[in-house]
Amino acid sequence: MCFFFFLKYWAVHVNGKVCKDPKLVEADDFFFSGLHLPGNTSNAIRFQITSAIIHGFNTLGIAIGRADFAPNGFSPPHTHPRGSEIVLVLEGSIEIGFVTSHPENRLFTKILKVGDFFVVPQGLVHFQRNVGEANAATITAFSSQFPGLIRVSDASFGSDPKIPSDLLAKAFRIDEKTGSQIQKRFSG
Amino acid sequence: MCFFFFLKYWAVHVNGKVCKDPKLVEADDFFFSGLHLPGNTSNAIRFQITSAIIHGFNTLGIAIGRADFAPNGFSPPHTHPRGSEIVLVLEGSIEIGFVTSHPENRLFTKILKVGDFFVVPQGLVHFQRNVGEANAATITAFSSQFPGLIRVSDASFGSDPKIPSDLLAKAFRIDEKTGSQIQKRFSG
Amino acid sequence: MCFFFFLKYWAVHVNGKVCKDPKLVEADDFFFSGLHLPGNTSNAIRFQITSAIIHGFNTLGIAIGRADFAPNGFSPPHTHPRGSEIVLVLEGSIEIGFVTSHPENRLFTKILKVGDFFVVPQGLVHFQRNVGEANAATITAFSSQFPGLIRVSDASFGSDPKIPSDLLAKAFRIDEKTGSQIQKRFSG
Amino acid sequence: MCFFFFLKYWAVHVNGKVCKDPKLVEADDFFFSGLHLPGNTSNAIRFQITSAIIHGFNTLGIAIGRADFAPNGFSPPHTHPRGSEIVLVLEGSIEIGFVTSHPENRLFTKILKVGDFFVVPQGLVHFQRNVGEANAATITAFSSQFPGLIRVSDASFGSDPKIPSDLLAKAFRIDEKTGSQIQKRFSG
Amino acid sequence: MCFFFFLKYWAVHVNGKVCKDPKLVEADDFFFSGLHLPGNTSNAIRFQITSAIIHGFNTLGIAIGRADFAPNGFSPPHTHPRGSEIVLVLEGSIEIGFVTSHPENRLFTKILKVGDFFVVPQGLVHFQRNVGEANAATITAFSSQFPGLIRVSDASFGSDPKIPSDLLAKAFRIDEKTGSQIQKRFSG
Amino acid sequence: MCFFFFLKYWAVHVNGKVCKDPKLVEADDFFFSGLHLPGNTSNAIRFQITSAIIHGFNTLGIAIGRADFAPNGFSPPHTHPRGSEIVLVLEGSIEIGFVTSHPENRLFTKILKVGDFFVVPQGLVHFQRNVGEANAATITAFSSQFPGLIRVSDASFGSDPKIPSDLLAKAFRIDEKTGSQIQKRFSG
Repeated sequence: MCFFFFLKYWAVHVNGKVCKDPKLVEADDFFFSGLHLPGNTSNAIRFQITSAIIHGFNTLGIAIGRADFAPNGFSPPHTHPRGSEIVLVLEGSIEIGFVTSHPENRLFTKILKVGDFFVVPQGLVHFQRNVGEANAATITAFSSQFPGLIRVSDASFGSDPKIPSDLLAKAFRIDEKTGSQIQKRFSG
Repeated sequence: MCFFFFLKYWAVHVNGKVCKDPKLVEADDFFFSGLHLPGNTSNAIRFQITSAIIHGFNTLGIAIGRADFAPNGFSPPHTHPRGSEIVLVLEGSIEIGFVTSHPENRLFTKILKVGDFFVVPQGLVHFQRNVGEANAATITAFSSQFPGLIRVSDASFGSDPKIPSDLLAKAFRIDEKTGSQIQKRFSG
Repeated sequence: MCFFFFLKYWAVHVNGKVCKDPKLVEADDFFFSGLHLPGNTSNAIRFQITSAIIHGFNTLGIAIGRADFAPNGFSPPHTHPRGSEIVLVLEGSIEIGFVTSHPENRLFTKILKVGDFFVVPQGLVHFQRNVGEANAATITAFSSQFPGLIRVSDASFGSDPKIPSDLLAKAFRIDEKTGSQIQKRFSG
Repeated sequence: MCFFFFLKYWAVHVNGKVCKDPKLVEADDFFFSGLHLPGNTSNAIRFQITSAIIHGFNTLGIAIGRADFAPNGFSPPHTHPRGSEIVLVLEGSIEIGFVTSHPENRLFTKILKVGDFFVVPQGLVHFQRNVGEANAATITAFSSQFPGLIRVSDASFGSDPKIPSDLLAKAFRIDEKTGSQIQKRFSG
Repeated sequence: MCFFFFLKYWAVHVNGKVCKDPKLVEADDFFFSGLHLPGNTSNAIRFQITSAIIHGFNTLGIAIGRADFAPNGFSPPHTHPRGSEIVLVLEGSIEIGFVTSHPENRLFTKILKVGDFFVVPQGLVHFQRNVGEANAATITAFSSQFPGLIRVSDASFGSDPKIPSDLLAKAFRIDEKTGSQIQKRFSG
Repeated sequence: MCFFFFLKYWAVHVNGKVCKDPKLVEADDFFFSGLHLPGNTSNAIRFQITSAIIHGFNTLGIAIGRADFAPNGFSPPHTHPRGSEIVLVLEGSIEIGFVTSHPENRLFTKILKVGDFFVVPQGLVHFQRNVGEANAATITAFSSQFPGLIRVSDASFGSDPKIPSDLLAKAFRIDEKTGSQIQKRFSG
């Protein structure tokens, strides 16, 4: 899906059939509704992402979403392999942190209140958690229309098929039986 | 200003002295506070931008800000020469529209309520206005740490020094005296 | 439309069906004739663009055209949202100027004679006008095969549908009736 | 550090003082010796990276290194936040695997023998391990001169300061005491 | 050398000291004079390049120049390693051709008259020659502010120090004595 | 051919039908076997390239191959128009050199033994030759999935159709008869 507004001057269609015919483009291709609505946080991590998906994002190098945290809710350590992220607090109070690369693994962390934001460089491991007693909510913007999401615990222990449990055990400095148990918990 | 977290592995400093020494980087370089605070809209257009500026944005290809609209407030037609923009409504109700390129000049427009967003492709002329009776506020995210802002009325009639008034008059299909008067209004 | 000359080594087709089969590519795909011919300047602004469109431009990040100015002819303030531009004078004498971004709106301007050129950074508002008594002509090169053209007067007052006239009036510091009249002049 | 060989034609220095004076550039700036030498694998993971660092890489978007695996050696799950990687086996036999993004977490895995290679897309979690009885060695090439390395276990449990242990425990589906014990093992 | 016009909003200086202070930028930084003047073609190849060098090009991804051909003058086979090129004929008549990559080495060639242009993809070997009886002149535009120029005969036989003559002889399918003689002709 | 692993979150297909359906992607799309096998060097230049071609390279900006040199074998002066290259010696001993741009044509050269590597900037003319008495072999990595290969002797004297022999003769400072003879040798 892509759009070209210069048709009389340029007959170029960069991306083949997946481009929407410019004559058929409409305002709704650039529109999304509902980021004011809390996501459902009735889950194990008491956290929910609302991903906004619109055709108009394509080729524009930007995306936006919302995250909700019930009390004690958290976003597990994760990366976005193809984009940097800004996290802006709408409601409540969260702690956010990112970890620099090997071998320093330095943690930069900050408590964010309403109206605060923090920026996370592309690809670095980061987490957020609700540090208030009420619900918290954030807006998240990305420097890519296709940033990706990798939860490092899921990618490590919850892959399908599984990563060899002895390797995970050694990497995480646990015994193999524990590694294997953790994998089972991610299989459910 | 830029940061490198891989110093043991890579001694490269891409941007010379303006890079901050990685040892001195701290969490506050990635942090900004205050986007929950309304900007001061006591001005002619009853509109205010709050630009968030942090060192941590550099090289990350993303930026964020806030805009406030008093009743009848509006953001004059403008472009961002180096970035696409997402406009997300925090409060109130705004109309947003962008105009495609020559020769179509097709206007895509949408009324946005709280939680709605709209995306504006890089470099296209767009405007917003408060269409509710109360204050409105938006969060604006950009696909560049350096998107730029060009108000087309200011750039046309308010440049320093002035663009020849007869040229402006013909471009805007007004008589030269009117063109000259408009320029004076922008000089104040 | 795109071309690949390395087929034995790489079977990759980046852009799907819109790529021309490399076996069918011919020299004419890279060729255009006629930039020595003046465009027809019998119009209100006594100015004409000749856009050169060839398949071979695709993916190459460059384009070229010609502009003609009858006496008193001018190119209205405009931007190219996706490219920088070089303007080289072939004939006659023109004034060229571009305006920097908000809030400075600083105008850089120069009189160009035959053999002079001036470069305009991507996305900035610029204009040209014939300042001689004879015809003038320029060659224009762009840092994109798809630079786009936005005339700020047309995008503001001539969009379809129209931008609300009261908003335009306030943005351009004119009364609403004048704003509305200008819009009508662009509708003809 | 960067180099310009076109000085008579172009006096541009893109990166300020960190550029090496082109007159002082020599062949050794593009040269590295020693990738045939096994790294020292006498460590807990029986694995060693040899990073090649040369001035000549700067701005070229490419880098190369070597990895050695003693029997039972392995490279813990990790990402390269700014580059794709090719792993080519020089000696022995390894298993390599990468995991796709949330929510699939699909594992693609392959046994590689001498002369085989596998490519890992930018930012995805991947691992390698020696699956033979002898030493194994690989050459690793990257699509960046600055790809970065993030070991997800180290970034999660070994950051400085520590990520809250209760959050890690929940993310990895372990009890908090276990989480805390793992953190201590990474602090030593 | 680079320019930033957004200083109140962004204090970022991307390239360190080599950036010109935005307050000191003037129109002449974007201006060049003299592309209407023929270069001096009193040389062995009866050909001359006029390179336009201005500060304003930096970061804009575009450049322009002029080439002059006396009768029988020609531009030897060459490449531009970092840019595509458009060649537009101002005067006279030239033949232009480029050769596709290994293993096809297909030649696309065209006779260009005044007002014709031809585009050459980045990095491909191309040549031009005057095929008229009078002088010829072209304007050349590039998709880079730093395209580079490599004359393949000079790079092969005229390098300093020399490429081993036996290698050149075999590559060019000549005897070694001839290879050595050619090298001497390039040393003078 | 391209892959998307985020389908639930993003329905974007950048490159039309040429993308492989993500559900059908398998590990073998990222795998290649055989770079340990010497290429057949029974040819005039006693040199062979083994190009590894896999679907998984697409969009990843990286590629890898192998080159074999019999005694006295060499890689003729050539360029890669779209990528930088690293040459790593697996076996034997080679000399490698690249030539900087016009007008310096400075040669940087180095003898490489097993485990040494050298990096060649994008688009520059370079050569390699076996300087040992045994076979030599290298691994070559590129900063592009589509780097291209241009042998300057083949592109100059072996194009189809031919470049005018008088032009080649003058460019290479040989008499036209010799130029014509060389062309014939490349036609066989």
